[in-house]
Amino acid sequence: MSLPIKLQLLSHNNNHYHANKLIKNKTFCNKTNFLPKPIFGNNPLIITKCSNKKVNRRMQESFMIKSSLIEPDGGVLVDLVVPENQRDSKVLEAKSLPNVKLTKIDFEWVHVICEGWASPLKGFMRENEYLQSLHFNSLRLNDGSFVNMSLPIVLSIDDETKERIGSSSNVGLIGPNGDYVGILRSIEIYKHNKEERIARTWGTTAPGLPYVEEAIASSGNWLIGGDLEVLKPIKYNDGLDNYRLSPKQLREEFDRRKADAVFAFQLRNPVHNGHALLMNDTRQRLLNMGYKNPILLLHPLGGFTKVDDVPLDVRMEQHSKVLEDGVLDPETTIVAIFPSPMHYAGPTEVQWHAKARINAGANFYIVGRDPAGMSHPTEKRDLYDPDHGKKVLSMAPGLEKLNILPFRVAAYDTKVNKMAFFDPSRSQDFLFISGTKMRSYAKSGENPPDGFMCPSGWKVLVNYYESLQTEASQQPVLSS
Amino acid sequence: MSLPIKLQLLSHNNNHYHANKLIKNKTFCNKTNFLPKPIFGNNPLIITKCSNKKVNRRMQESFMIKSSLIEPDGGVLVDLVVPENQRDSKVLEAKSLPNVKLTKIDFEWVHVICEGWASPLKGFMRENEYLQSLHFNSLRLNDGSFVNMSLPIVLSIDDETKERIGSSSNVGLIGPNGDYVGILRSIEIYKHNKEERIARTWGTTAPGLPYVEEAIASSGNWLIGGDLEVLKPIKYNDGLDNYRLSPKQLREEFDRRKADAVFAFQLRNPVHNGHALLMNDTRQRLLNMGYKNPILLLHPLGGFTKVDDVPLDVRMEQHSKVLEDGVLDPETTIVAIFPSPMHYAGPTEVQWHAKARINAGANFYIVGRDPAGMSHPTEKRDLYDPDHGKKVLSMAPGLEKLNILPFRVAAYDTKVNKMAFFDPSRSQDFLFISGTKMRSYAKSGENPPDGFMCPSGWKVLVNYYESLQTEASQQPVLSS
Repeated sequence: MSLPIKLQLLSHNNNHYHANKLIKNKTFCNKTNFLPKPIFGNNPLIITKCSNKKVNRRMQESFMIKSSLIEPDGGVLVDLVVPENQRDSKVLEAKSLPNVKLTKIDFEWVHVICEGWASPLKGFMRENEYLQSLHFNSLRLNDGSFVNMSLPIVLSIDDETKERIGSSSNVGLIGPNGDYVGILRSIEIYKHNKEERIARTWGTTAPGLPYVEEAIASSGNWLIGGDLEVLKPIKYNDGLDNYRLSPKQLREEFDRRKADAVFAFQLRNPVHNGHALLMNDTRQRLLNMGYKNPILLLHPLGGFTKVDDVPLDVRMEQHSKVLEDGVLDPETTIVAIFPSPMHYAGPTEVQWHAKARINAGANFYIVGRDPAGMSHPTEKRDLYDPDHGKKVLSMAPGLEKLNILPFRVAAYDTKVNKMAFFDPSRSQDFLFISGTKMRSYAKSGENPPDGFMCPSGWKVLVNYYESLQTEASQQPVLSS
Repeated sequence: MSLPIKLQLLSHNNNHYHANKLIKNKTFCNKTNFLPKPIFGNNPLIITKCSNKKVNRRMQESFMIKSSLIEPDGGVLVDLVVPENQRDSKVLEAKSLPNVKLTKIDFEWVHVICEGWASPLKGFMRENEYLQSLHFNSLRLNDGSFVNMSLPIVLSIDDETKERIGSSSNVGLIGPNGDYVGILRSIEIYKHNKEERIARTWGTTAPGLPYVEEAIASSGNWLIGGDLEVLKPIKYNDGLDNYRLSPKQLREEFDRRKADAVFAFQLRNPVHNGHALLMNDTRQRLLNMGYKNPILLLHPLGGFTKVDDVPLDVRMEQHSKVLEDGVLDPETTIVAIFPSPMHYAGPTEVQWHAKARINAGANFYIVGRDPAGMSHPTEKRDLYDPDHGKKVLSMAPGLEKLNILPFRVAAYDTKVNKMAFFDPSRSQDFLFISGTKMRSYAKSGENPPDGFMCPSGWKVLVNYYESLQTEASQQPVLSS
């Protein structure tokens, strides 16, 4: 597909950083002092800023180039960060309005929405959008077409907040650290039927679903939807913000690299050599299909994850080692953080993961076994059929334009001592190392078989689990 | 919309009854010896049968008339009853295959599928259809368009049956009375995750959902999908078969009456004068819109209902009294039975109720407060938000071509002693009589206010509840 899109190389509102700063401005915490260079290969993303606004605008308006990138859902990438010159007045306005305090997860959703990952969604869902998402996993646009929208992206408030908002049309949003982060306009408040939301999103109401426990169980009885304005670009100041490229920035980079195919790999676990094999193989397959320059978007999820998942900073460090080690080619790979929180909602969530990557410019999406799945919280079985994710994804409304690439199963081939695609004709030669198994190796300090993961990446995991044990041993022991 | 459809006035396969028989052949049970005449007004439906098959075929093929009826989903009305001349051989074949025993509800679904209410569905769902229904409430057709399909229409089997089927591609279906009723071909057997099915269909997994208790809780761990063939038209021999008009028969009748609009009213309760007011008002609104001959399809649900609903035969008798009483005009009204079982799945189910009526030729659908809703089985509240049904219906994929007519609220106006549209400016004058209240009147033998329901219709209900009490008093009392 070859569509003219408006490339706004100079136009990111409030884009008050330069990309060369991305390289230079390393304020990393100890655990994450790895090089972001491999993200951009040898061609660092340059975003220059021109102070002549008229020239800027003219350039923005006239600079239409032929891009081979997939069109964002709804045709235009949503960008809800207010222009810098309006910021002060909007902050004042926000402070004058009834306010809503955001949790950490709410804040992550503000981030997701304002950068257009959920395009064409322009704010937290009103009831019509919520119902379509819940029942149809999709939203109907004015032209009658559908975009995928499988997760309800909603903001809950309690009775007291609803009372306080009264008849106000707009509310100010306060982030977890107490700063005003945005305004929600033309609000609509409607009932939050948690049971129904949970049942329809997860296909179970069993206690113990991580996102439910964290974000829904004790949340308010009302949902508040409206049009979002965000006062300034979202930052976490955790040393990883440079990896948080917006869909617009990613598209710019893909275009700069003249990508004619972008294949996204969503992950929330360390990268082992089986993943790398798969990604390299995918690139080769795309080349064989006739694409000249397929670019990999290695896209770890950066929002809420469950407590026993490997934390983001450790994962980013591990990914960096894998790239340094040359397992993946920095020239054709971009590592960036996907800011969404994790639902662990299997076939429902994998659609969200894929849809958001369309908005970031990916036209190929790699899907594995049991994507976004987990064990059933109360029964001894997988919560979802491991094949349903890719089946549902391949049939989902609004994802027609995305090419789904089912994961080929890789396992440790004991004959050649490396990860290889599973060959059922000699299944006895293969060793399957699950995420749980990998974590138990790392926890016990035991090494996985040679060739499972690059040694420097493995070291990151071992260090992490060692630090956990040290922490645990330093906890005061309470006598009973 | 004006579409050429193939009218098969003479062609119903295995149509071995004549419509004049519908009128004459009254084998009604005592409770239901009411006249079906009002169904057809003064123009009884005539289906003649020509014994010259060649002539018949030519007439079928050439007889294309301009019909103003809405197109069935998928373009062609599904009809899965095998031609009469193949029946004997198909029965033999069915008997030679591994068999699956159908429950009463399974049998009702066979009825629904084979007559094309679920067009374009041609059998019990295979996994791809099941997943689309569960996640998207719709099926994608080969041309990329969607049809609505909100309820999983599935057949469950237990481990033993699955074992017995082995590698057979086809199975014979045995009805609840022991007769072979059909063949399921090119079968696919897949896992029946009951929890997920229930959660996604009802938005709750609370115990006590009537359809779940009756049809899912103790059903098998597998679902079997495939292409259905039905050996002969489905009959119940309960004296009500004449009311069970197929979508094809209904379309023929609408065409015969030269309907230029068909408005369907789904119900599973007795008709009171508020309903009648609404239906007559709807007709008037359609006339005002410029339609010349709007026909009402008064379409009570005839399949499984929960134990405290009024049974079908009593309802049909009550409806007949209402028509005899002249509250509705027989000239412009067709009463027929919709053979589907009831899920009580609110916004999910109302889509099914509407979609099936498209297939029967209705282009207008009246939707009320809390359609297909009920009380939460374990909490003191409605299971669904009473407004969600009509909202979801108005946004549902595949129902774009159907005009949704939201129910205007009718209540008993104490100033004029009749049912009238509620006027909020004098709300104190109105009395709301719920279904529960109506039943409690009828149970206690107390009369509702004059003008609530025609006296002959009311009498039917009182008699029914009296008969229940008589039955109860005749039950042996067990000493504890």
